[in-house]
Amino acid sequence: MSKVRVGINGFGTIGKRVAHAVSLQTDMKLVGVANRSVNINVRNMLGKKGPLYKTDLYCSEPANMKTMESTHFKVKGSLEDLLRKVDVIIDGTPAGIEAKNKPLYQKHRVKQIYQGGADKNVADASFTAIANYEKCVGKDSLRVVSCNTTSLVRTIHAVNETVGLKDIFAVLVRRAADPHEDADEGPIISVVPVTKVPSHHGPDVQTVLPKINITTMACAIPTTLNHTHFITATMDKECSREDIIDAFRNACRVLLFRAGEGYETSSQIAEYFRDTGRPRSDMFEACVWEETVNTVKNKLYWCHVVHSEAITIPENIDAIRAVMNTDKKLSSIRKTNKSLNIEK
Amino acid sequence: MSKVRVGINGFGTIGKRVAHAVSLQTDMKLVGVANRSVNINVRNMLGKKGPLYKTDLYCSEPANMKTMESTHFKVKGSLEDLLRKVDVIIDGTPAGIEAKNKPLYQKHRVKQIYQGGADKNVADASFTAIANYEKCVGKDSLRVVSCNTTSLVRTIHAVNETVGLKDIFAVLVRRAADPHEDADEGPIISVVPVTKVPSHHGPDVQTVLPKINITTMACAIPTTLNHTHFITATMDKECSREDIIDAFRNACRVLLFRAGEGYETSSQIAEYFRDTGRPRSDMFEACVWEETVNTVKNKLYWCHVVHSEAITIPENIDAIRAVMNTDKKLSSIRKTNKSLNIEK
Repeated sequence: MSKVRVGINGFGTIGKRVAHAVSLQTDMKLVGVANRSVNINVRNMLGKKGPLYKTDLYCSEPANMKTMESTHFKVKGSLEDLLRKVDVIIDGTPAGIEAKNKPLYQKHRVKQIYQGGADKNVADASFTAIANYEKCVGKDSLRVVSCNTTSLVRTIHAVNETVGLKDIFAVLVRRAADPHEDADEGPIISVVPVTKVPSHHGPDVQTVLPKINITTMACAIPTTLNHTHFITATMDKECSREDIIDAFRNACRVLLFRAGEGYETSSQIAEYFRDTGRPRSDMFEACVWEETVNTVKNKLYWCHVVHSEAITIPENIDAIRAVMNTDKKLSSIRKTNKSLNIEK
Repeated sequence: MSKVRVGINGFGTIGKRVAHAVSLQTDMKLVGVANRSVNINVRNMLGKKGPLYKTDLYCSEPANMKTMESTHFKVKGSLEDLLRKVDVIIDGTPAGIEAKNKPLYQKHRVKQIYQGGADKNVADASFTAIANYEKCVGKDSLRVVSCNTTSLVRTIHAVNETVGLKDIFAVLVRRAADPHEDADEGPIISVVPVTKVPSHHGPDVQTVLPKINITTMACAIPTTLNHTHFITATMDKECSREDIIDAFRNACRVLLFRAGEGYETSSQIAEYFRDTGRPRSDMFEACVWEETVNTVKNKLYWCHVVHSEAITIPENIDAIRAVMNTDKKLSSIRKTNKSLNIEK
């Protein structure tokens, strides 16, 4: 079987990670990367010591061609040149830009994978592998939902297979900015609430799990590491905490950590991924604190941590196989997990 | 009517503020302050430029008498000497110490006000002025509940007068440490969840509002300013958000702030109290973001900010009048509010 030819447009936090992940798949070929400029991601990843040194670089904005060519990076052509050579394009451009790119993608008849910042209507469906891969097979375009939504979908889907959940309520305590971003991206000392209540995250979960009843509130806090979510729900029937812990233990891309073993803080969970050799210490899993999982009669509680930069990367890889219809759900998930050293 | 004679034991974050507040009451006399050492609070407040310069200083630990006397602060005597001269003692000692102090207080037959860190059984009742002043009148001892609990009691009590609330769930996003405390008190970059779920805060609310059904989860985050709470509840009947906003507008020691007017973050709310001349910028009110108040069918949501150092100060003053039975609830609250420039 020939390899799926993949291009990346927008080489930022997500784009560079998906590019790297694509290069690790045996059934895909990373054809090239398009960006509007030679940014540090291009320098780091496509430079002489970068993991994608041999990958072709394209210019996504014609007006910037000269500036890009003035660097020591060779620019292979325009975004359209890239689109002529690929089956699938991963759009990692900033939220709002992807809608402007779409007509060009369609003109070249390439399948499209968008990110969670995009409006849901930009794509034929929203996607989280374990929850709705089958429904997404063969679509022309998919939207991999955001980091927050992905973690909620994975955990809620897992529990919901064990016991029906209704009336889910979650508070999302979000990192202010990514580690490489400037302070003006987020708070230094304050808490910044999302004043639209309920926040948009609940409806976003419903783009993947339409039957789930969930409302959310959210805020940003002064940290760069990861988000922390606090969730409660009403269960259809009483259930032991052990049953729920088992559901998380068996869940796709969910890991349990015990505060009692020393993983008391979100940074101590992050330290696990620094120590165990993940590229960039990326945490692809939603990480649940085992002690926080509790049931009181028919009420359920848990708390998990989400690495905003990384959690959606495996979903992007599975989304490629879904749109190309080159693999079944569990087989794709297994391949992706193995390539990224995702446990379980 | 003779003034109530008040002593303070433990001159920390709460003790120094209550001492200052007592000194502002026309129906109370601050007899003296006991502490185990000449700490910076003693230096700041009882020093030549301090607002309590003329207040007598006592030594709460006999072993420390010599060290304290070696400073330029005159030590008037022991804690027992202070207890002989007062009707009420405010215990502001660290959590766990107050239980050891209690026998001495009882020996001298003084009324006792404890703080929220104390076990609830140390006092005859737990106290929040607007919610249960009447039930606390004449008690020998009261426990002013913690900052988090005080804010929950004030807001829940206010709404509950308008519409019955059941199934309250709150997530408490707590400041890591007070501004003067060292970094090792709390997280620098991480989120530290309370892994006991539900957390102790729900049962603590029930020490004041026993009929309220509430569960809570909590975490600490890297800020020193204040706590932020996210609350949802089920209402007995459908109610408009305007009705709930009115309830908060009329509530005791609750203030509404609008993100739309520029109060978008917890630090911007704090800035109001810096600008409007409160001592230490203290925020005695629970501050609700008006935009976050919302109702969807019979579900209610809101978000408020709590200044951990200051919110319980007015309750301590009212607690003094309650144990001494020198005033009625609303009259006491009015006096306290006026003396501390609490609006409304």
